[in-house]
Amino acid sequence: MRNGLLSQLVSSPMEIKVYYEDTDCGGVVYYANYLKYFERARTQYLETRGCSIADWMQRGVIFVVVHAEAHYYSAGRYGETLRIETDVADVTRATVTFSHVVREKLSNRIVVKGSARLAATDHHGKVRRLDKTIVTALRSVPRPSEAHIPEP
Amino acid sequence: MRNGLLSQLVSSPMEIKVYYEDTDCGGVVYYANYLKYFERARTQYLETRGCSIADWMQRGVIFVVVHAEAHYYSAGRYGETLRIETDVADVTRATVTFSHVVREKLSNRIVVKGSARLAATDHHGKVRRLDKTIVTALRSVPRPSEAHIPEP
Amino acid sequence: MRNGLLSQLVSSPMEIKVYYEDTDCGGVVYYANYLKYFERARTQYLETRGCSIADWMQRGVIFVVVHAEAHYYSAGRYGETLRIETDVADVTRATVTFSHVVREKLSNRIVVKGSARLAATDHHGKVRRLDKTIVTALRSVPRPSEAHIPEP
Amino acid sequence: MRNGLLSQLVSSPMEIKVYYEDTDCGGVVYYANYLKYFERARTQYLETRGCSIADWMQRGVIFVVVHAEAHYYSAGRYGETLRIETDVADVTRATVTFSHVVREKLSNRIVVKGSARLAATDHHGKVRRLDKTIVTALRSVPRPSEAHIPEP
Repeated sequence: MRNGLLSQLVSSPMEIKVYYEDTDCGGVVYYANYLKYFERARTQYLETRGCSIADWMQRGVIFVVVHAEAHYYSAGRYGETLRIETDVADVTRATVTFSHVVREKLSNRIVVKGSARLAATDHHGKVRRLDKTIVTALRSVPRPSEAHIPEP
Repeated sequence: MRNGLLSQLVSSPMEIKVYYEDTDCGGVVYYANYLKYFERARTQYLETRGCSIADWMQRGVIFVVVHAEAHYYSAGRYGETLRIETDVADVTRATVTFSHVVREKLSNRIVVKGSARLAATDHHGKVRRLDKTIVTALRSVPRPSEAHIPEP
Repeated sequence: MRNGLLSQLVSSPMEIKVYYEDTDCGGVVYYANYLKYFERARTQYLETRGCSIADWMQRGVIFVVVHAEAHYYSAGRYGETLRIETDVADVTRATVTFSHVVREKLSNRIVVKGSARLAATDHHGKVRRLDKTIVTALRSVPRPSEAHIPEP
Repeated sequence: MRNGLLSQLVSSPMEIKVYYEDTDCGGVVYYANYLKYFERARTQYLETRGCSIADWMQRGVIFVVVHAEAHYYSAGRYGETLRIETDVADVTRATVTFSHVVREKLSNRIVVKGSARLAATDHHGKVRRLDKTIVTALRSVPRPSEAHIPEP
């Protein structure tokens, strides 16, 4: 039961509804806004693994984006729900790269594929080594909140 | 000559070009974005009077918006240039209210009228009295940069 | 059972998580972004009452914002979850006014109160009378999706 | 005289002031917003060459972004003025790639390097060949507005 639930969560992408705020006068999601979606998706990825960016900040670890990229396959439109799958594509001593696939929920058509590489820095902006607990968390399966786990 | 130049500057509104980023799928400027334009316009208003928000911050004066309002008269559209007139509508012991009129540049049609009231706070978010130099600056005529004043 | 569920839904506010994209260098949610939250909240309000803005658009009814207003009581911060309660404050022949109260979820402290008045227009931007089905839907209790209603 | 003026314009990058709206709670320009700056810069690039995206749209040529990329070198900060140099890096039968270098104006330090590849489509989203006048314009030196050209 618990395993079934977990594996379901591993593959469960984030869902994002498209509002007016996201679109432009071309009638589609403005191209920069997918990078906002990537941020939301990697935050959820981390939180479901027990990682809080806010907590890290307080312990002096600040993540900054060093590279971002997006390939636009089709247009996201007003009222659609988009599903974003997120994976850790690469981890180095000081960086982690998240990769994302955005699909329209109903049709499953691919909308955007992209990635963002983040570096860990201290409060002065100096790059620092990722500590082990972070790397372990990044590689772990998602930890569902207690609310979602039925007692056995 | 100098007077003529100054009075021209007093009335010279900020010009803002409308890009895709500003619009929504209704084909017009998204309603929240006028509050971004207001911020740009009041920043320019202050800077042409020798006031720098960044400087104030370093001296411990932080301005926070306590109220904002916009009346939408007509739609701003992609490619248009908007002109924003800014005035100080009210100054109290701890707040200043900026009022704005946004017009389409070519036709002069009114697009939006609005206002934002800002309160001065310290670094802990506690409201503090506006100091005299700020009030004086707010009430002054714009101070053109040297680059714009021809030597007599 | 069903009644209990419905009344729960009537009062259930929309939850919005605050991301980096929402904040500014003051460390708090940027003041214009609450108008984006209002849009999300009124969209949800309408959808839970069986109203789709996209459907109306196809039938030639376009809603435009004619007035928006926000009072800022406290700062929304990164990582917080905000809860937005939405009500219809007023309905006239051609306009509907939504009112919103935004609270921080854990502490229940009030963050922002605001409103947006929308007018119904046709494709040429001409104001038109709200039709009866819209008014009825606006005044109705939310219609939960089938997925949320347990079979009796 | 005229040549001098032209060459000055060729190399004149777009200047963008950083406002609160552009920053995030990390105290720096939010990473997605550089893609907004790219849009402003390529629009200016085109307009100074006599190309209007709005005009093309009316003639049935719509440009959509098919790829975008940004390398973040240093942080852009509130109150800074950024300068964006724009070049056409590549032109194919149906696409044009703009490349951008963003520098902080005073220090000349590199902030971001990036690019966006746009494809020409018709109103149905079908890719179409770039017509010759567009390609010629893209490759041309900027055409200063009459206001800027002193009569010989």
